[in-house]
Amino acid sequence: MNRTRLEAFSDGVFAVAITLLALDLAVEGPGHGHTLLWQQLGHKWPAFVAYLISFFTIGIIWVNHHMMMNGVVVVTRTLLYLNLLLLAVVVAIPFATSTLADYLTSPWPDGNTAAALYAGVFELMSIAFALVSEWILRHDEYVRDPLPTAARTSARLSFYAGQLPYLTAFVVAFFSVPATVIITAVTGIYYIFVRTYAPPTPSARDMPME
Amino acid sequence: MNRTRLEAFSDGVFAVAITLLALDLAVEGPGHGHTLLWQQLGHKWPAFVAYLISFFTIGIIWVNHHMMMNGVVVVTRTLLYLNLLLLAVVVAIPFATSTLADYLTSPWPDGNTAAALYAGVFELMSIAFALVSEWILRHDEYVRDPLPTAARTSARLSFYAGQLPYLTAFVVAFFSVPATVIITAVTGIYYIFVRTYAPPTPSARDMPME
Amino acid sequence: MNRTRLEAFSDGVFAVAITLLALDLAVEGPGHGHTLLWQQLGHKWPAFVAYLISFFTIGIIWVNHHMMMNGVVVVTRTLLYLNLLLLAVVVAIPFATSTLADYLTSPWPDGNTAAALYAGVFELMSIAFALVSEWILRHDEYVRDPLPTAARTSARLSFYAGQLPYLTAFVVAFFSVPATVIITAVTGIYYIFVRTYAPPTPSARDMPME
Amino acid sequence: MNRTRLEAFSDGVFAVAITLLALDLAVEGPGHGHTLLWQQLGHKWPAFVAYLISFFTIGIIWVNHHMMMNGVVVVTRTLLYLNLLLLAVVVAIPFATSTLADYLTSPWPDGNTAAALYAGVFELMSIAFALVSEWILRHDEYVRDPLPTAARTSARLSFYAGQLPYLTAFVVAFFSVPATVIITAVTGIYYIFVRTYAPPTPSARDMPME
Repeated sequence: MNRTRLEAFSDGVFAVAITLLALDLAVEGPGHGHTLLWQQLGHKWPAFVAYLISFFTIGIIWVNHHMMMNGVVVVTRTLLYLNLLLLAVVVAIPFATSTLADYLTSPWPDGNTAAALYAGVFELMSIAFALVSEWILRHDEYVRDPLPTAARTSARLSFYAGQLPYLTAFVVAFFSVPATVIITAVTGIYYIFVRTYAPPTPSARDMPME
Repeated sequence: MNRTRLEAFSDGVFAVAITLLALDLAVEGPGHGHTLLWQQLGHKWPAFVAYLISFFTIGIIWVNHHMMMNGVVVVTRTLLYLNLLLLAVVVAIPFATSTLADYLTSPWPDGNTAAALYAGVFELMSIAFALVSEWILRHDEYVRDPLPTAARTSARLSFYAGQLPYLTAFVVAFFSVPATVIITAVTGIYYIFVRTYAPPTPSARDMPME
Repeated sequence: MNRTRLEAFSDGVFAVAITLLALDLAVEGPGHGHTLLWQQLGHKWPAFVAYLISFFTIGIIWVNHHMMMNGVVVVTRTLLYLNLLLLAVVVAIPFATSTLADYLTSPWPDGNTAAALYAGVFELMSIAFALVSEWILRHDEYVRDPLPTAARTSARLSFYAGQLPYLTAFVVAFFSVPATVIITAVTGIYYIFVRTYAPPTPSARDMPME
Repeated sequence: MNRTRLEAFSDGVFAVAITLLALDLAVEGPGHGHTLLWQQLGHKWPAFVAYLISFFTIGIIWVNHHMMMNGVVVVTRTLLYLNLLLLAVVVAIPFATSTLADYLTSPWPDGNTAAALYAGVFELMSIAFALVSEWILRHDEYVRDPLPTAARTSARLSFYAGQLPYLTAFVVAFFSVPATVIITAVTGIYYIFVRTYAPPTPSARDMPME
């Protein structure tokens, strides 16, 4: 019951953040130079790439947030504030996306700075997500059907291993911008497909899933 | 129960996207030239036309999304991700609308590019909608009161025939910008009136409708 | 149950529209001239006035929307589309507010155009609201506890008399911009206080109110 | 039941306002000068500071709004309008934040004006919050489990003492901008930690909390 409002607020923030992503796609109006519209759209490919990666990454966070909160029956102030911390990072994703879209093709060091900022925000998001998960895993008294010990270990492993790809993408940003973009894209695709067709992970057990 | 949160998030995205459409209507402040305000507003008629078509097209998608999800009782990860795909296109509609508003009266090839982009995004939205519908039609085990076989054929026909107008509008864009605008507007009006006064289509049966 | 999603979507649109109003308050950053910040803020008084009037007008529409929908038990496609029409006007209020804020102090004819646009959008909103109300009044079969005949006449009177102030404000705009602003402000204040302290009007009977 | 829609609308406004805060973080695109991206990001530290303080302050208001509304069972028009007053101030926070971010490092009097505006909006928010709380405290007939007299006194003390830090920050703004920023930040942190680990305050008793 209290969870409803926590979820409604979080869903609102996710929905606004995911929709603001598309503001970067905007092209300049006519009369701002001699570039044809289809050429402008063509030059904006980094904005489309950044948009798609960020859209599905926020989408995946939302799906996992959905699952993670599903078993929580008592919402405490600590959980509310940890969730706010996660949302504070989610809300910064459109900013990081917009910066990457603008500087993706810039030479050293601007392209690298933008890529590091992008991977860095995703890494912060991954850390904030792990904090919320860890808190829930440690408070069985507020959760319906807490996980058995083995599942708990495996869930923790998954949260902590989840830090690796974005950390790698962050470090790689100083050497290769395209490599950072590819790592963040592949990480997103991995999380969509692996969890979709694999048997439900322990943390998914609370919710009817394929 | 799980559907609630899927719908809440989708409603949030639809609501933000539909509200952002109106940002294009903004005129320039005083002191930016000698054009009178009513002349500026007059010159912005393409923005008003594009706003109205997009507003009601997103509105129709929302109404149909409402009906389509109504019978779903188990939300799986695949459905969540197919729904995200649909939302990724919905979120791009304000961008396509804004581009059409800016370039509607531009000569070849800019006006045509903008019209093709506009019709193209609507076609992608139509395809994404058909994908979600097709998935629901194929998973009776997650749906309350699945459709009988005849109704299913007719529902599929409607989804696949629904691709035609936007595909036509896309092709026509390369020859005539006004024709594309008229086709997208008429398609929207058709979907509002036909479904309003006709007896409920099979897919509408789940929900109390006129 | 179906009403829930209609209300959730409408609430989302109202919430985004009411929050976008404040974007007009933004001042220019430092280095854009020699105007001190407090002088800039002082010169922006039309933006603050327009913001407050529009905020509380949208707020009043939302409160009344809340009350009007409260007795509806079956949501039909016609009601969904009439509601969309109302939302299409609500979404245009930030645009009209922003234009008024920019041109409130401009000489004839720009100030007058902005004031006419502002009052005109409020009048359209009032008409759309009356259309939704009229439809609900005519469809007792979809409403819990339909109004008795006398209450119905009085409710209709209130909807149709409600057109007058904004229509007046629209006509007055061509003669006096401040008069238009005052009429729209007083109309809002009237609706806040009259309905708050008066005994509930017939249409309010469905909902526990003071 | 009616409270649901009041909360849904408020949550929407909080969610949009909190997400718009991050729009200030945007940097300029390439080609707008010779500043490197990491230098631009470094120069934007006031925007990051202002973003974090405002994000968590809005978050705290949302958490407290959540708790305050939790015991309300009958929503009257007066409560709806007092709540709208609170939301009107919340919606102005992104504007005050953006102004502070732009002028934080400006010399007298611009930095001081921005700091006074920032603390002033927070003070108004605190007053609006106290008004809503006071109204709820005075209307036991609309509240489930009204507070006992002692708890009521202590709750009132907390609302009225809560005015002090922002009032101080407002006055201090005319002498020291950094002091204002520190006071608003510390006030936020105080409210996060004190209420999290302290035994529930009387007003929190309605809701399961740590």
